[in-house]
Amino acid sequence: MFEKKKREVMDKLKEAISENRVDKDILDTLNLINSRKEYYTTSSCAGRIALIWMPDLGDKKRAEFLGKWHGKITYEDMIECLEFRDHGVVFLISQSPIIHVASYDLKSAVKIRNLAYSCGFKNTGIKSINKNIIVEILSTERIDVPLGEKELLVDEEYLRFLIKYANRALERSRKKLKKLNEKLRSF
Amino acid sequence: MFEKKKREVMDKLKEAISENRVDKDILDTLNLINSRKEYYTTSSCAGRIALIWMPDLGDKKRAEFLGKWHGKITYEDMIECLEFRDHGVVFLISQSPIIHVASYDLKSAVKIRNLAYSCGFKNTGIKSINKNIIVEILSTERIDVPLGEKELLVDEEYLRFLIKYANRALERSRKKLKKLNEKLRSF
Repeated sequence: MFEKKKREVMDKLKEAISENRVDKDILDTLNLINSRKEYYTTSSCAGRIALIWMPDLGDKKRAEFLGKWHGKITYEDMIECLEFRDHGVVFLISQSPIIHVASYDLKSAVKIRNLAYSCGFKNTGIKSINKNIIVEILSTERIDVPLGEKELLVDEEYLRFLIKYANRALERSRKKLKKLNEKLRSF
Repeated sequence: MFEKKKREVMDKLKEAISENRVDKDILDTLNLINSRKEYYTTSSCAGRIALIWMPDLGDKKRAEFLGKWHGKITYEDMIECLEFRDHGVVFLISQSPIIHVASYDLKSAVKIRNLAYSCGFKNTGIKSINKNIIVEILSTERIDVPLGEKELLVDEEYLRFLIKYANRALERSRKKLKKLNEKLRSF
């Protein structure tokens, strides 16, 4: 059952990789995890910086990306994408890498959870154990900044400062990803 | 073993309540959970808004609270506590309620995890299953805004806007807490 499902998911992953739909910065980690018979990855993101328009606080379903970057950004990158509407709010966010790992049994789930935790992914936990046992590997670096409703409410100096922080948050979490890769190699 | 540990933790909780160290807004939830023999709560927060000085991004160990509120705040509340230092950065954060629940076995852990998830606590998961099985009940409302390093980099208009959002985030997550209480009553 687990092996069959893994084969299906791995076929889809190969397809996604060939179509450039998987972050390059997380490929090593995915390969290292998927090389072990007791795990397979179901979804992932290498961490990102994004500009998001939301019709209302927390309404993620109807949110729209104005810009999305998987690496460091400049002030100019951001300004190019920044736009306001007559309602809703625009957020700048910086998110940690996230990896969902299906595990063969609870023992292996706990093992990879502890490994990721020891690399600084302090928000790692078992997200579900209903049909599949899914471990969510997640770190704590995060910036969620509302920039304004109908118009931008901060100035260039602040935006540059914010981008510096967003970039540093991304950098910090990428270092954790490298550490995780090292540990996975000798797992 | 579980029952003995629960008695110890409950004695400490009673002491904390009598010393006013537990958020009033989460007491109903704690009592509802603790009234069931298969669970006990180990730590909790009803959600809060806080001003935090951090020596460096993500350095939570050496961070210091400049202000901490478990209810809605005003612009004046915040300004009173806002101060900058010659290094480090000041953040305004708004955090979801959080409850850690020790569970008797995996079946009961999954049960309360699913209940909390269905009330909108979408970041709920099993945090550890080593010595104890701990479910972390957590929602997604969150604001993490760096306000400046040596000085404030935003103006009053933006701060008022930010506080409005922080208050709304708190309000939203408190509604989820009420929904959780209702469901726990008929659990």
